[in-house]
Amino acid sequence: MIDLKPAPTAPSGAEPPSLMYSEAAAAAELLPAQLSRNAAMLDRLRSDLAASPAHTVLTLARGSSDNAATFIRYLIERRLGLVTASMAPSVGALYGAKVDLTGTLVLAISQSGRSPDLLGSMRKARQQGARIVALVNDATSPLALEADYFFDLGAGPELSVAATKSFTLSLTAGMMLVAALQDGGSKSDNLDRLPDQLAQAWALDWSAALEPLANAQSLYVVARGHALGVAQEFALKLKETCGIHAEAFSAAEVRHGPMVLVDAGFPVICLAQDDEARADVAALAEDFIARGACVMHSGLGIGNGIALPCLAADPLVSPILQLQSFYRMCEALSRLRGFDPDHPPHLNKVTRTL
Amino acid sequence: MIDLKPAPTAPSGAEPPSLMYSEAAAAAELLPAQLSRNAAMLDRLRSDLAASPAHTVLTLARGSSDNAATFIRYLIERRLGLVTASMAPSVGALYGAKVDLTGTLVLAISQSGRSPDLLGSMRKARQQGARIVALVNDATSPLALEADYFFDLGAGPELSVAATKSFTLSLTAGMMLVAALQDGGSKSDNLDRLPDQLAQAWALDWSAALEPLANAQSLYVVARGHALGVAQEFALKLKETCGIHAEAFSAAEVRHGPMVLVDAGFPVICLAQDDEARADVAALAEDFIARGACVMHSGLGIGNGIALPCLAADPLVSPILQLQSFYRMCEALSRLRGFDPDHPPHLNKVTRTL
Repeated sequence: MIDLKPAPTAPSGAEPPSLMYSEAAAAAELLPAQLSRNAAMLDRLRSDLAASPAHTVLTLARGSSDNAATFIRYLIERRLGLVTASMAPSVGALYGAKVDLTGTLVLAISQSGRSPDLLGSMRKARQQGARIVALVNDATSPLALEADYFFDLGAGPELSVAATKSFTLSLTAGMMLVAALQDGGSKSDNLDRLPDQLAQAWALDWSAALEPLANAQSLYVVARGHALGVAQEFALKLKETCGIHAEAFSAAEVRHGPMVLVDAGFPVICLAQDDEARADVAALAEDFIARGACVMHSGLGIGNGIALPCLAADPLVSPILQLQSFYRMCEALSRLRGFDPDHPPHLNKVTRTL
Repeated sequence: MIDLKPAPTAPSGAEPPSLMYSEAAAAAELLPAQLSRNAAMLDRLRSDLAASPAHTVLTLARGSSDNAATFIRYLIERRLGLVTASMAPSVGALYGAKVDLTGTLVLAISQSGRSPDLLGSMRKARQQGARIVALVNDATSPLALEADYFFDLGAGPELSVAATKSFTLSLTAGMMLVAALQDGGSKSDNLDRLPDQLAQAWALDWSAALEPLANAQSLYVVARGHALGVAQEFALKLKETCGIHAEAFSAAEVRHGPMVLVDAGFPVICLAQDDEARADVAALAEDFIARGACVMHSGLGIGNGIALPCLAADPLVSPILQLQSFYRMCEALSRLRGFDPDHPPHLNKVTRTL
């Protein structure tokens, strides 16, 4: 039997249990300054794109930042109508292939701004005609300094190896970028309310997921549409901080083979925002529950399985809120499984890949 | 102790052990007709693109076909210099977002040509200005009939739920497409030799992977560049036919978090082609071996770990050959683990996702 105490709450009056805990919690208070810090850059980008439009957006990122790119891609395609896709860093950095990128906006996302393959791909893309927008947390990094447009994530120092607040602020950066380009620079209502909502989401209790995951070896995280990038980040964080082989899929993709593994007792986390994707994710969750799988879900509105609470929110925002509730549970799960959430084995804070 | 007999060889004179076995083996003999069947279409596509060039290629696919798209993307970017990326089927099919696709070539890949989300996305993309090239195995399917350019995969009926020959023929279709657009329609040497090479690759003995994988729950498949799409297909086939939680990563991506799981005894298959990516994959494999991981590898040219044989071949071709050797091992592993490779639990041959 698993001892479910400590619940995912910092002991009152005591030090927070880990850097991951305090860093994840800090996103709410960092958010208001993020917009003001980048307002002038967003103005310049908006007028430059009005004068010389882009036909395609390509995202360039690895790890957590690539998961943020997935989230931002849905926002850009749906709200700006600009086709957005992920580029392969290897093609430019490793093979040096000549690809014509005239008319392309490259959105490079990185916490450190220092990974050689990302820098190599960014430089190659510039030579090939792309304009570079960089979302970076280190204003002194080469990626920040060399980009045509630098969006300062403003997460401040992040000492836990597992990125949390810098990831959350990458998602909100994407929202600010899209709001600026769509609404002529006006702040959206979504962004005004987000700091409060993040604090509320942090207080939600996801500890019902602790016992099913205490000894899990494998896990699927399933979402569709706007929550997909956040589902990918759930999976990566569960690998890094809890040693679980967690893998994320869209609710459509998992049916094309991977769901073979979803049998009695197999744990699955299903996420949905309140939009056209929800019924599909809910139907899949019900199928998995009928097989006896251990389905934990948030935002689905179904009665079976293990419900993880979520706030009523705009579907574009609710994945960010689900992430915030998840971080707290994940940090507790890491400790429950005997890991140090701030120091996963085999990893460094800055990953330099060629 | 695991009984390694039957080795991955069909008993002489007997029926092949499964449909998967005979279908996978058939790719070599189906290949020559594939080019002649599609030569006229490729001519037309070449002259149309010369008259009205595309600035971007977007791939549209799910499951195995999406893995084929990864393989084709590297070919197009490196040999045609056209930026190529994967589009999210949900954006068009589910959300109905308006995205401007003028100047875009959409490469839709599907064995059945009948999945509603793929069809919905294809139709939406056409309305938005894209030209559609469809690589499909069913000439009577709506995808084949409605595309601007239909490339007939010509794999013939495929009855095993796990796609094999149709996947291999999707990869060779991509090679033919790129050769036609690059070389003015001349057949490349690579394609001439491929049927013989496929037969040789089929005869290679990968049974050294059977014992380490007989009881494995998790597995990583790692590659970089041209072999990445094939690594993704290894992972999907191992899920479908063997019930292993196998996940594929680029050698760069796995360092950004996922390699936390690679500890003593953790099984990893590393693949490389003989090009700029090989040293990076080999260095990673040596790191994993030093941790005590169970590393099986093909094409790396390293002395440690478990070597799986591969033919000397052009780096653009060798992933296809590694796949062919893998299929035979995978089919044997499926039976060794008590699965029926032709009938994975919970799956149907045609997956219809909305």
